Amino acid sequence: MNQTELLHVNFPHLRELKPFESAHHTTPWLADIHAKHTRKLCASLDDAIARSGLQDGMTISFHHAFREGDQVINNVVAVLARLGFKNLTLASSSLMTCNDALIEHIRSGVITRIYTSGMRGKLAEAISHGLMKEPVQIHSHGGRVKLLQDGELNIDVAFLGVPCSDEFGNANGTQGRSACGSLGYAMVDARFAKKVVLLTEELVPFPNMPASLGQDQVDLIVQVASVGDPAKISVGAARVTSNPRELMIARYAADVIEHSGYFRPGFSMQTGSGAAATAATRFMEEKMARHGVKARFALGGITGGLVDLHEKGLIEKLLDTQCFDSEAAASLHRNPNHVEISTDVYANPGGKAASCDQLDVVILSALEIDVEFNVNVITGSDGVMRGASGGHCDVAAAANLTIVVAPLLRSRIPTVVKRVTTRLTPGESIDVLVTDHGIAVNPARPEIRERLLAAGLKVVDIEALYQRAVSLTGEPKPIAFTDRIVGVIRYRDGSVIDVVRQVKEEEL
Amino acid sequence: MNQTELLHVNFPHLRELKPFESAHHTTPWLADIHAKHTRKLCASLDDAIARSGLQDGMTISFHHAFREGDQVINNVVAVLARLGFKNLTLASSSLMTCNDALIEHIRSGVITRIYTSGMRGKLAEAISHGLMKEPVQIHSHGGRVKLLQDGELNIDVAFLGVPCSDEFGNANGTQGRSACGSLGYAMVDARFAKKVVLLTEELVPFPNMPASLGQDQVDLIVQVASVGDPAKISVGAARVTSNPRELMIARYAADVIEHSGYFRPGFSMQTGSGAAATAATRFMEEKMARHGVKARFALGGITGGLVDLHEKGLIEKLLDTQCFDSEAAASLHRNPNHVEISTDVYANPGGKAASCDQLDVVILSALEIDVEFNVNVITGSDGVMRGASGGHCDVAAAANLTIVVAPLLRSRIPTVVKRVTTRLTPGESIDVLVTDHGIAVNPARPEIRERLLAAGLKVVDIEALYQRAVSLTGEPKPIAFTDRIVGVIRYRDGSVIDVVRQVKEEEL
Repeated sequence: MNQTELLHVNFPHLRELKPFESAHHTTPWLADIHAKHTRKLCASLDDAIARSGLQDGMTISFHHAFREGDQVINNVVAVLARLGFKNLTLASSSLMTCNDALIEHIRSGVITRIYTSGMRGKLAEAISHGLMKEPVQIHSHGGRVKLLQDGELNIDVAFLGVPCSDEFGNANGTQGRSACGSLGYAMVDARFAKKVVLLTEELVPFPNMPASLGQDQVDLIVQVASVGDPAKISVGAARVTSNPRELMIARYAADVIEHSGYFRPGFSMQTGSGAAATAATRFMEEKMARHGVKARFALGGITGGLVDLHEKGLIEKLLDTQCFDSEAAASLHRNPNHVEISTDVYANPGGKAASCDQLDVVILSALEIDVEFNVNVITGSDGVMRGASGGHCDVAAAANLTIVVAPLLRSRIPTVVKRVTTRLTPGESIDVLVTDHGIAVNPARPEIRERLLAAGLKVVDIEALYQRAVSLTGEPKPIAFTDRIVGVIRYRDGSVIDVVRQVKEEEL
Repeated sequence: MNQTELLHVNFPHLRELKPFESAHHTTPWLADIHAKHTRKLCASLDDAIARSGLQDGMTISFHHAFREGDQVINNVVAVLARLGFKNLTLASSSLMTCNDALIEHIRSGVITRIYTSGMRGKLAEAISHGLMKEPVQIHSHGGRVKLLQDGELNIDVAFLGVPCSDEFGNANGTQGRSACGSLGYAMVDARFAKKVVLLTEELVPFPNMPASLGQDQVDLIVQVASVGDPAKISVGAARVTSNPRELMIARYAADVIEHSGYFRPGFSMQTGSGAAATAATRFMEEKMARHGVKARFALGGITGGLVDLHEKGLIEKLLDTQCFDSEAAASLHRNPNHVEISTDVYANPGGKAASCDQLDVVILSALEIDVEFNVNVITGSDGVMRGASGGHCDVAAAANLTIVVAPLLRSRIPTVVKRVTTRLTPGESIDVLVTDHGIAVNPARPEIRERLLAAGLKVVDIEALYQRAVSLTGEPKPIAFTDRIVGVIRYRDGSVIDVVRQVKEEEL
């Protein structure tokens, strides 16, 4: 009787324990000096897809850290189309104008379901006009993590583009030719996906550590010519503005923060995406320096403006889910207190702790806001989708002071409306609206209203802003929708807060 | 019909989707400015235990980063005993001389099973003499992660001591009064445990990032007076030596590396624990400087000696699962290329990639090594357990060149033996044995033997070393064991490579 048999006889509950066979019995690659180093490397994307085990009907995922510069989503889906895949669910953390090429692959049945934070451009138009049988599921950044955690969203294969990785899959977004900065979206996919395929521009020597995506998460690696153009990260929603009206709104927003009661040493802030929101950063600097008020942290999408405040000692830490420009990406590499965080750590309402729960002040954008402070950031005034949920409802729900900035009119169309076309963030989460025609405070926050009035700011009722808009442009013509649902708006907890219906085609 | 009902009618497969209720429906703590900040904080360890849901028969875990200075394991188990818990499985990453206090809690039935990398002192003696009904499961550091991954080991509640944490559970080992350095063991428990309780000495402001244990992993936090004494990390196995024989062996080991064929620019090394192994570092410095050979990385337990080489530019990166002294802990805080890694990333044979697979050279210790190069690092010459598996078999299996250093005799008892009392690492994984009486090369590696001979090193057959030992001391008297199994030695893949039997009591 050998020792293992003796063990089984004496301890029957240990009978699952097997005897030792050889040092490399379960790690055969260690017997091969070559295989030790190459077992994850794929010769081509086709090879990686074959080895990933992807099948028709499965779910694929992507991250959108390169925003309008992304070169992974379209390329991978084109290869999947060539290989004959059908009925895939596309779960990209978001989709952009650059993803128009997906239209043909939806039409041909390669992609039949979509989960995303948002959509823009021709893809969004086509879907708004009924391209897909199945409605698109629009989630927030935090809500996406909860969908993954709850199992509604099951990623079979994540295709994650990175500027650099070693042969084991240790990757980051701050080194290499195409540094995009934080991989906060991809970190979640790397954790939840059954198989993780890295597409990397550069293959660098092990150990490429510290790593944002780690070797313990990555299954397969394929080197590709390009994963994205970082110069295109800061176009569109993440652009820097010199528009005088946007700058004026940004300045008002900074005034609101100063007098809100939350502007005190150790406060924290997020300035989101959207030109006026990001521009508010520069007006904060002067106030912080003048009053000697330093922030403990800034959260979310990080811009060069926030980096500047950090390096001047005005913001102690930057918690970064996404770099909105190359200054932010460079800072993430350089500054030890500029910290990369996943969207789980950022804003998951089902997680063990979301950083947004610590937030004092956030400035957010809106396509529309109604007299009950409900916010629409997804559909335009024509009912067509052209935006993204992002972290909007996550941070609005969690911050102590949620400020929405928006011009009263855009191209002679009111932003302040009776009822939003589509509700993404409930009015109960919005505290203050800052427009170029005045500042409205949610009646649920009378103390904020008093403070802003005491400071001499131009506080008005939101109903008055709505009336002012209508007086300038007339009552907008209602949008004609069909009964067909083309989009489902998921609140951060997974519930359905609204649906988007197909826009009725104009009679020709 | 509301929008969600409309959705269900049109898309029956979406009927699980629920309508929105309110912003804080699933995050009620956000409605309470106090609860947002305190929901994880516990008034006392008793409170934390109650809230953790711990029940009789469950599994608790600990890390051993404080080694002989640990003040968490004994304290928590004492509280569990006071609270009347029974039949717990103790899964500490290792146990030390300082854990003698557990004996009474094993005797009284609080702890009835143990998984650990090793044991020392009175606890090990008592177990070797039959204290427990159930044999102790001895695993390697990498093998422990595989047991967790495979589900044999299921941690219900991990009690993890840290020097500092914020109120969300972002913790690290490099700041605070009692900095222990890397939390590489604890990182694995934080990932796998159903509930994670942090015991922290200091509660610091959010965001305590970058974090080693993150807010997304931590359930409960309790502030305690002390978690450990870092001054006691470097006693015992991790001590620094001035013993001339140990230094001589260390110098021989460095000579072996130099002439092994693996000493070339970009090589990598691990120098383990054990006095001679860690001392080899200082002899490597001169060789590296003289030949202009820089190492890509050093792996595993990190010492001040390795930090010194890193800061002199001789080692590019330090991948650190455990800081063996305060110099290493300080460096981890200071040096961006001194990188904290979990034991999963270090050595898990069932993971997606183990860093040890990249290793060129490792120097390991032995209590005994036999003529077939099998190594014993757990039982002494009296058959009593007094050591730890550690990363021994993990790294030995993976490195290109595995060197064992040991004196031929210890207290007039042979280290080189006919057959090891207990086999932890199979002889097939050991390439070279360095003793104070000569260097033996595994016959499976004739090319290494040739290189060492060509360099004029004193190469001898291992059989000759064994004969030399016997000629000096006589043939050791066989140890008398009973049939009762008190320990099961698990190879890194989970298989049973040996068992430890109870030592027969001397007749009185």
